[in-house]
Amino acid sequence: MKKTLASDNYAGTSPEIIEAITKVNNGHQGAYGADEATLEAAKMFKRLLKEDIEVFFTMNGTGANVTALSTVCPSYGAVICSSAAHINVDECGAPEKFGGFKLLTVEKQDGKLTPQDIQPFLVNLGEQHWSQPKVVSITQATEYGTIYSVAEIKEIVDFAHKNNLLVHVDGARISNAAVSLGVSFKEMLVDTGVDFISFGGTKNGLMFGEAVIFLNTKLAENYKYVRKQGMQLLSKMRFISAQFLALFDGDLWSKNASHANKMAQLLADGLSKVPNVEITQRVQANGVFAIIDPSVIPVLQEQSPFYVWNEQTHEVRLMCSFDTTEEEINQFIATLEKLSSVSV
Amino acid sequence: MKKTLASDNYAGTSPEIIEAITKVNNGHQGAYGADEATLEAAKMFKRLLKEDIEVFFTMNGTGANVTALSTVCPSYGAVICSSAAHINVDECGAPEKFGGFKLLTVEKQDGKLTPQDIQPFLVNLGEQHWSQPKVVSITQATEYGTIYSVAEIKEIVDFAHKNNLLVHVDGARISNAAVSLGVSFKEMLVDTGVDFISFGGTKNGLMFGEAVIFLNTKLAENYKYVRKQGMQLLSKMRFISAQFLALFDGDLWSKNASHANKMAQLLADGLSKVPNVEITQRVQANGVFAIIDPSVIPVLQEQSPFYVWNEQTHEVRLMCSFDTTEEEINQFIATLEKLSSVSV
Amino acid sequence: MKKTLASDNYAGTSPEIIEAITKVNNGHQGAYGADEATLEAAKMFKRLLKEDIEVFFTMNGTGANVTALSTVCPSYGAVICSSAAHINVDECGAPEKFGGFKLLTVEKQDGKLTPQDIQPFLVNLGEQHWSQPKVVSITQATEYGTIYSVAEIKEIVDFAHKNNLLVHVDGARISNAAVSLGVSFKEMLVDTGVDFISFGGTKNGLMFGEAVIFLNTKLAENYKYVRKQGMQLLSKMRFISAQFLALFDGDLWSKNASHANKMAQLLADGLSKVPNVEITQRVQANGVFAIIDPSVIPVLQEQSPFYVWNEQTHEVRLMCSFDTTEEEINQFIATLEKLSSVSV
Amino acid sequence: MKKTLASDNYAGTSPEIIEAITKVNNGHQGAYGADEATLEAAKMFKRLLKEDIEVFFTMNGTGANVTALSTVCPSYGAVICSSAAHINVDECGAPEKFGGFKLLTVEKQDGKLTPQDIQPFLVNLGEQHWSQPKVVSITQATEYGTIYSVAEIKEIVDFAHKNNLLVHVDGARISNAAVSLGVSFKEMLVDTGVDFISFGGTKNGLMFGEAVIFLNTKLAENYKYVRKQGMQLLSKMRFISAQFLALFDGDLWSKNASHANKMAQLLADGLSKVPNVEITQRVQANGVFAIIDPSVIPVLQEQSPFYVWNEQTHEVRLMCSFDTTEEEINQFIATLEKLSSVSV
Repeated sequence: MKKTLASDNYAGTSPEIIEAITKVNNGHQGAYGADEATLEAAKMFKRLLKEDIEVFFTMNGTGANVTALSTVCPSYGAVICSSAAHINVDECGAPEKFGGFKLLTVEKQDGKLTPQDIQPFLVNLGEQHWSQPKVVSITQATEYGTIYSVAEIKEIVDFAHKNNLLVHVDGARISNAAVSLGVSFKEMLVDTGVDFISFGGTKNGLMFGEAVIFLNTKLAENYKYVRKQGMQLLSKMRFISAQFLALFDGDLWSKNASHANKMAQLLADGLSKVPNVEITQRVQANGVFAIIDPSVIPVLQEQSPFYVWNEQTHEVRLMCSFDTTEEEINQFIATLEKLSSVSV
Repeated sequence: MKKTLASDNYAGTSPEIIEAITKVNNGHQGAYGADEATLEAAKMFKRLLKEDIEVFFTMNGTGANVTALSTVCPSYGAVICSSAAHINVDECGAPEKFGGFKLLTVEKQDGKLTPQDIQPFLVNLGEQHWSQPKVVSITQATEYGTIYSVAEIKEIVDFAHKNNLLVHVDGARISNAAVSLGVSFKEMLVDTGVDFISFGGTKNGLMFGEAVIFLNTKLAENYKYVRKQGMQLLSKMRFISAQFLALFDGDLWSKNASHANKMAQLLADGLSKVPNVEITQRVQANGVFAIIDPSVIPVLQEQSPFYVWNEQTHEVRLMCSFDTTEEEINQFIATLEKLSSVSV
Repeated sequence: MKKTLASDNYAGTSPEIIEAITKVNNGHQGAYGADEATLEAAKMFKRLLKEDIEVFFTMNGTGANVTALSTVCPSYGAVICSSAAHINVDECGAPEKFGGFKLLTVEKQDGKLTPQDIQPFLVNLGEQHWSQPKVVSITQATEYGTIYSVAEIKEIVDFAHKNNLLVHVDGARISNAAVSLGVSFKEMLVDTGVDFISFGGTKNGLMFGEAVIFLNTKLAENYKYVRKQGMQLLSKMRFISAQFLALFDGDLWSKNASHANKMAQLLADGLSKVPNVEITQRVQANGVFAIIDPSVIPVLQEQSPFYVWNEQTHEVRLMCSFDTTEEEINQFIATLEKLSSVSV
Repeated sequence: MKKTLASDNYAGTSPEIIEAITKVNNGHQGAYGADEATLEAAKMFKRLLKEDIEVFFTMNGTGANVTALSTVCPSYGAVICSSAAHINVDECGAPEKFGGFKLLTVEKQDGKLTPQDIQPFLVNLGEQHWSQPKVVSITQATEYGTIYSVAEIKEIVDFAHKNNLLVHVDGARISNAAVSLGVSFKEMLVDTGVDFISFGGTKNGLMFGEAVIFLNTKLAENYKYVRKQGMQLLSKMRFISAQFLALFDGDLWSKNASHANKMAQLLADGLSKVPNVEITQRVQANGVFAIIDPSVIPVLQEQSPFYVWNEQTHEVRLMCSFDTTEEEINQFIATLEKLSSVSV
């Protein structure tokens, strides 16, 4: 299949990751996480974040989000999130089904919550008829390719903690956010006081695998049971752990994420010069959202498949990944330019 | 880590599988199953079983069992199974949590159900206070390493269908069963009338991945939503599909399974000659269950880790895998013999 | 306790209902619905609606809503409703927990859905990542005391059915709606094509008890199990059924509901003459919503307790019930007038 | 309908209870438990048991059991109970569905657990694949009409607490047990150390309503939300509370229970003199289990309906209630004697 701008999971696996998988396939190892690579990967995350954390691996992002939130939020609780949050729109109701809790959503143009968005939910606390807010979940980078600054995260966490709420970060594209902000994971997640994270791997070049990391370790006490009951425990765990080691123990994570971000920037720059194209979101990570003349969309999709985000406004989502090339971007822009001039 | 007899998932991945994974890592592919390998893998299973089936991949065995059963059995229903069934003892209550249904269990020495075991549950049908039996789930090969003959499966299916029950096969070790019986998957599963299967891969050399296969395709209608809501949908699906293609499109599955079974036979033969060792189950697949002098167990475990199945009776479980060697078996027997003569 | 305008469930039980309960307490009867009163009550509803329905009793309104919706909507489905719907804000997440499905909510000033509100959710049908819309749930009378006309209900049902959606009516105050519209239940619910109803009793003078009625009887097939598993099956069922018989077999339902509606009208008329009071919703049933000077609210509440609906706008909710008297309304208005003149 | 021996919920409501309901129907009261009768009923239970308890009312027994257990036992936990327990056989899987946890059952001829029955489940604690035992649930009186002595309860509680398990009592027939043992509720439940109770009312003459009582008040912290989410919160709560006040604030509870127990004793005495009748359980409460010639069962059931407990052994269950009369018992025996002499 030709390269696409459809999603960062249309890409395959970074070659370095395949190599790591091959290398860890070295005879017998304890199953379900009792192996050397998993031990090493946990240590690696402690170096990356802080010593006092609990690290667990899951199989996919929905599994990471749902099991993590479910171990923290009781079924009579509620999770406050953006209406565009992956947990709200892309998980087929898995949070409600498995966690039993309610999602309280806020419609924000850029997908970013603020304390002011959370405030209105803090009524009727203690009232038995109302799902009780327990967690704020933010996505970093957001589903719209925008990014919370470190200060914005800290502001949310401070507000949340003052109001007895815990903060979860859906970090499916956490690496893209870190390189975009130019900060360490520690600065972005530990120093701001975040409580727990779905730490993404797949969208930055892994074959599969996500990490659930509890910075607030009291929350981790029973997570191992929730992960198993949530069907997210892999038997040959080393094959996830080794991938994470390969991604984060050197600079592969930042190399991959920087490249994807840079391609998105290149794409946005090119698009901004095409007449009648409107870029609808700040381009801070590896995604570009833009309104394009609907008559050219099908032809353009044929060259390089992508998704129409909003059928009514003709807003499209263009995602770059670690393997997107400059040539592909340039050719995409060139085609669009040609089509646009014709259609005008 | 040295080789073990602990579990067939202490083993790594068959080299042929690693190769297939590497090969399918060829640029962009549609995510979530819209890729060529997944298409091919579905065709392959159709050749293996019959044309009119529905094939889905999940990430692990618990996920396959729980999502498959949940799409078929309503929450007010019940699944009849052996008390030793993986769904009953090894999934941390995932079937009850996600499916909401009840497990009705039968204690059988060899882990094999018969129509006579199912009959007593067929009372109070239609009575609103009672969970309504909907599915019989059998494990092939069983958790005790025993195997249902084709005739035994057919007898269960016929009885089940006559009583409006559907039949599920937990086939985590389905390949071991097929080679042990010397029959095709079609003879064992299609011709007998089984309705749906968790078709195992991991325990026969895959890195990860199981298949849920509906032979009765009416049951599959909404499964894709249940799989997603059950957190079992992998984004880069080709990396499961390619493994299954490599395992089942040639004879790798039978090569791996035959080898594991043969090693178990060798082990059983050896054990049977050691004084005071009692083999407790027929050795038909890749596991051996035996009662061993408890005083020798710790030393023996040090040489080759394995699990004590029953702390009270000192019954141990010894699992062989595709990479177990004759030398390992012989050395295990030799050590046991030496220890036994000392302890006597 | 003095009379209140807090809620129609602060009121007690209609004396006629107490009488019916006393009368049905006549020795032994089959439990769980196998009694004469339940048989009679089902027949009564058939006369009220149509012959081909299925009638079940539950213990409270949340139980009626949640079990009814759960038997119709799969866990991967979604129920479209107003954001003010009881199922969304007053049931502590019971729909999500028990049904596992998602609520897709629309913010409407008057709490009434239209086909235009439903349309935007009808995208990505068949897409496995998205909760699939299955049911539209409307509340009649709404939580804001407004009422759907028969034509409006029909329009929603027609639109829903054309789009493979079923229509549920949360009829906690269905009697208030019927007398307000001056139509029969048959005209409002059967002739419009509604599929299933939570048919309210408690808020119109019952001690407890609601009915789940399937006008579309195919939906009822497994409801008895769902009701039991949903903990809504009463053993001494006749004590609910007899109440419904007493309410609906004569004109008690319309007498009670008309009175409550009339009191609300009287209250609204009075309020509209008080300076600086703004009535915020059409007064069509037994509730009045109004913005009142916040400084007078506490004193007013002391005379006749009621709830502040919106702390920010000082909108209050004043509910009348079958036992509200003209004197109480007049005195309430008088007090408010006196307080208002002082506060000005 | 003629009187039956079918179930203690075929009986109606004690006249004193109807009177209490009528009396509490005195104008407006706060809904959802914020009323005077509920306050009084809580105080009454404090006098009956001890000061430091938390009292909540639910609508039926299944609701009491399931919500109480669910607030204490996490979904990855397990509840140990008799295989005959109401939670295991009569609640259509509601514990599994709502609580998500597993029931670990023990088959006991008399339905009574002992520490020895619990011991075998205390393996693999902390193992993530296994549902973790958290609660022991005993039924007092049991579903077989047998009764735990105070010493037996204490022994179970001591064993449970030593092993980090909590103890729940399903007290659907707790009054029958108290009068049978001739002890106070305090001696039976508080002094033995029980943690939480489903305190029955319906089977001892209430119209409906059960109490969930936490003797260990730490367990009650979030129960109000669980009750609401479990659909067990009644709006006009006073109508449950007043019933409990009428039952337990004087000696109605013991009058009703003693009478039912005495009738069961009379029945057992009579049956024991009929040839070929075998009484299968100790008669300690209000139920009699006996094996009867199957040829006479239908005729006998016509005179006085009852349930066949075991179709294979022809064991029947005969339940007495507060309104069973000596004449009914004598006539039942007489009929059976006549039928027996004919059939011989």
